Amino acid sequence: MLRIADKTFSSRLLLGSGKFASPQLMQQAIAASGTQMVTLALKRLQLDKPQDDLLSPLKAMNIQLLPNTSGAKTAQEAIFAAELAREALQTPWLKLEIHPDPRYLMPDPIETLLAAEQLVKLGFVVLPYCSADPVLCKRLEQVGCAAVMPLGAAIGSNQGLQTRAMLEIIVEQATVPVIIDAGLGAPSHAAAAMELGAAAVLVNTAIAASADPVVMAGAFSQAVNAGRTAYKAGLATTQLHATASSPLTDFLAAL
Amino acid sequence: MLRIADKTFSSRLLLGSGKFASPQLMQQAIAASGTQMVTLALKRLQLDKPQDDLLSPLKAMNIQLLPNTSGAKTAQEAIFAAELAREALQTPWLKLEIHPDPRYLMPDPIETLLAAEQLVKLGFVVLPYCSADPVLCKRLEQVGCAAVMPLGAAIGSNQGLQTRAMLEIIVEQATVPVIIDAGLGAPSHAAAAMELGAAAVLVNTAIAASADPVVMAGAFSQAVNAGRTAYKAGLATTQLHATASSPLTDFLAAL
Amino acid sequence: MLRIADKTFSSRLLLGSGKFASPQLMQQAIAASGTQMVTLALKRLQLDKPQDDLLSPLKAMNIQLLPNTSGAKTAQEAIFAAELAREALQTPWLKLEIHPDPRYLMPDPIETLLAAEQLVKLGFVVLPYCSADPVLCKRLEQVGCAAVMPLGAAIGSNQGLQTRAMLEIIVEQATVPVIIDAGLGAPSHAAAAMELGAAAVLVNTAIAASADPVVMAGAFSQAVNAGRTAYKAGLATTQLHATASSPLTDFLAAL
Amino acid sequence: MLRIADKTFSSRLLLGSGKFASPQLMQQAIAASGTQMVTLALKRLQLDKPQDDLLSPLKAMNIQLLPNTSGAKTAQEAIFAAELAREALQTPWLKLEIHPDPRYLMPDPIETLLAAEQLVKLGFVVLPYCSADPVLCKRLEQVGCAAVMPLGAAIGSNQGLQTRAMLEIIVEQATVPVIIDAGLGAPSHAAAAMELGAAAVLVNTAIAASADPVVMAGAFSQAVNAGRTAYKAGLATTQLHATASSPLTDFLAAL
Repeated sequence: MLRIADKTFSSRLLLGSGKFASPQLMQQAIAASGTQMVTLALKRLQLDKPQDDLLSPLKAMNIQLLPNTSGAKTAQEAIFAAELAREALQTPWLKLEIHPDPRYLMPDPIETLLAAEQLVKLGFVVLPYCSADPVLCKRLEQVGCAAVMPLGAAIGSNQGLQTRAMLEIIVEQATVPVIIDAGLGAPSHAAAAMELGAAAVLVNTAIAASADPVVMAGAFSQAVNAGRTAYKAGLATTQLHATASSPLTDFLAAL
Repeated sequence: MLRIADKTFSSRLLLGSGKFASPQLMQQAIAASGTQMVTLALKRLQLDKPQDDLLSPLKAMNIQLLPNTSGAKTAQEAIFAAELAREALQTPWLKLEIHPDPRYLMPDPIETLLAAEQLVKLGFVVLPYCSADPVLCKRLEQVGCAAVMPLGAAIGSNQGLQTRAMLEIIVEQATVPVIIDAGLGAPSHAAAAMELGAAAVLVNTAIAASADPVVMAGAFSQAVNAGRTAYKAGLATTQLHATASSPLTDFLAAL
Repeated sequence: MLRIADKTFSSRLLLGSGKFASPQLMQQAIAASGTQMVTLALKRLQLDKPQDDLLSPLKAMNIQLLPNTSGAKTAQEAIFAAELAREALQTPWLKLEIHPDPRYLMPDPIETLLAAEQLVKLGFVVLPYCSADPVLCKRLEQVGCAAVMPLGAAIGSNQGLQTRAMLEIIVEQATVPVIIDAGLGAPSHAAAAMELGAAAVLVNTAIAASADPVVMAGAFSQAVNAGRTAYKAGLATTQLHATASSPLTDFLAAL
Repeated sequence: MLRIADKTFSSRLLLGSGKFASPQLMQQAIAASGTQMVTLALKRLQLDKPQDDLLSPLKAMNIQLLPNTSGAKTAQEAIFAAELAREALQTPWLKLEIHPDPRYLMPDPIETLLAAEQLVKLGFVVLPYCSADPVLCKRLEQVGCAAVMPLGAAIGSNQGLQTRAMLEIIVEQATVPVIIDAGLGAPSHAAAAMELGAAAVLVNTAIAASADPVVMAGAFSQAVNAGRTAYKAGLATTQLHATASSPLTDFLAAL
């Protein structure tokens, strides 16, 4: 079981709610994925409309909502957004995202740490999206974040574990769950993330932008389970050479 | 469904029977993997002993036995071994392996093609283990092989899809099933093989040499399903850049 | 020509001075590399000994000394060390290194930015060692750093451009020279760094720990030139397919 | 010095003569590369024209001409072409290329070995282009080839050492020079090929299709030298961890 803050989850796959063709498709993909936690951007909520069409289907499902501050460029913006999100969604859980860069949506390490520290003091359960920086992850942990969410590659790039060498160090050093977020574009990427010891992964674009999001959600679910199971069972070590095999000649000669 | 020659299989994971600590463990891993086809080396059969301990548990399971000619160094040896195997196991199915090299067990393209051609004429259902060579695979197909089994990396190396660029060409050009064999060391490798369009994978060392072969067999099974499902659903394309995201500022300003 | 702050350099290879078997070997390797800038750790200077044996040979060469703050764990320590170094070496040039982590010597993004900002105000020419974090590099540039020095892999690991995807974004966005530092273990790694657009590279372990540091220094020098030249000339694009070739049959038929 | 058959070469970079915008550009690139061996397709020779424009500039340079059988689809075609080439160019040196596949120009292992064996008997110095297949390379060596030329990636693809794991085995086992051919798209690829122990590399597209072939030829020349030098000097080993560094605190405390 994955434990984050005071909650436990049997699924180690988190989903994003963006880019789906319709709320119905999102809802079906969420169901197919077996996820128990879904992130959604505060800016996509229509706070003034009681019947907004993204939040209702999410609320109807038995999942942990994880509002995020996507679009925030500073700690101040993120904190303000966090307060709004807590009020609107009635949860202190928060995916902290601060990315001043509009092209690659790369997270800002300075503002993220600053905001994380304050949000923890304000009672939030903070899961920060961050670069695959081992010292930054350690510091986010030290200010009280409930997990860290280092990126595998640029958001929406589907390029997989481009930061693998850094992620391995982060996983080795972390004492909070490491959730690899961004860039996972195929089930094999998610399995590889779990095999290197991630506690969970977050996937959005690869599912939402697939030709069949519902089926793809199921594929990611299986891959996450496969990778986690392999990590627990212990992968066989990599070898340079084959184990010597006895020649068939001996066998044939012995007939 | 995977169709090879005149048979269909719902599982796309083939297993090897070598390197297990005991026949019991092998049997349990096979069951956990859901595989419907298991390869075993003729040279490991104790043909003169009615109660040999490798074959009996395999026969008791409802799976296709795929005897292999591991250890053969020439086409002649392989053909002789194939005849023995057909007689002993009462099946024309054959994994053709000819590897003169004892260090890496690399297959011999010349002897393999020579043997394949003759074995097809002799009525065998031939699945040749071969290097990841697109022209060789095409020729093996042309002489009547029921599938081709190009290597991902050296046998037992667990290094994954080291020959990926060649495998992609092989899959693109093949009209028989491509079964990626050798080198797959983790469920993520198996998923990646399926995502690039392999019809199936064969795994042995990574399961048998795992700390927990039974659990690992289940992990590979899931990963193969995940990769195949993703291939069928259509993976999202790789992007260099993130899709531009609307800034939170606009949202906050609109409140 | 590489321009950093108010100086120009014809060599784009920077060297570290650590791990050499002797000062003589270091001196010879520096000469063979053609470098015009060498970094040295303040902590290795023996400030109280006029005839210390690391500094003298460096001073005798016509190169820019680049003292570094290796071993500093906080901005405060680094600034104090920088002041000592400026006094001792009579240069405001500084490689800023702050790494609280003794195992991988990973740089601290927060303390590094904090120190960089203050050191710039104190008149230093600051070249910060940092993680391959695009936003951090942009911020270091904005506080006035003369260059940024993102890591390719862990210091001393010789693993090459493990952070390649992030380095490409950094190079694309930078307006100051990007000097790739740490992890470059072979001339091919240095060439690849230059081909992706780095302004320079810094190499230490791969030269100093080589069986023949002097010869290896020359090899790195050539590789840096080769990579830079290729970048300027324009690399041919990557293709999936071969260009169709005319069959020999037509030629033979025309004879 | 590189020794192939009875000749020695100080340059370890071979060039192809295809795809240059003009014979003049080809000639300048050859000169800039420092190469001593250039391959040219028999089919591009205009045997009936005394003043054909590809051969004359090549003959004017002091280099070993290496005619190739590009476009041949069978051993028979290749042998016929080889005889023509020997007659026309007055050299028994031959790059053997047999690729029935027009899309990727992948070499045929069976026909190549068949032709190689006969060509050796006919007195040719045979350098066969082949897949990165360790057993095939060993067999080509055993029938008397003067070198083997396994591919790094598809011809003209510029994708680099995609077959690296196989090339390492080939180099380890070879007793004739291994010349890595096809796919090398950047100087860093050529350096990496030399670092893993190749005796030489052959480059064509990456130079001829560059925006500045002459400058690029020089860059490849430097990279080949750098890689070879590093191989001879001995690369430092790859490490997972940094070597522990003494903290600056101790130094500062000792002041």
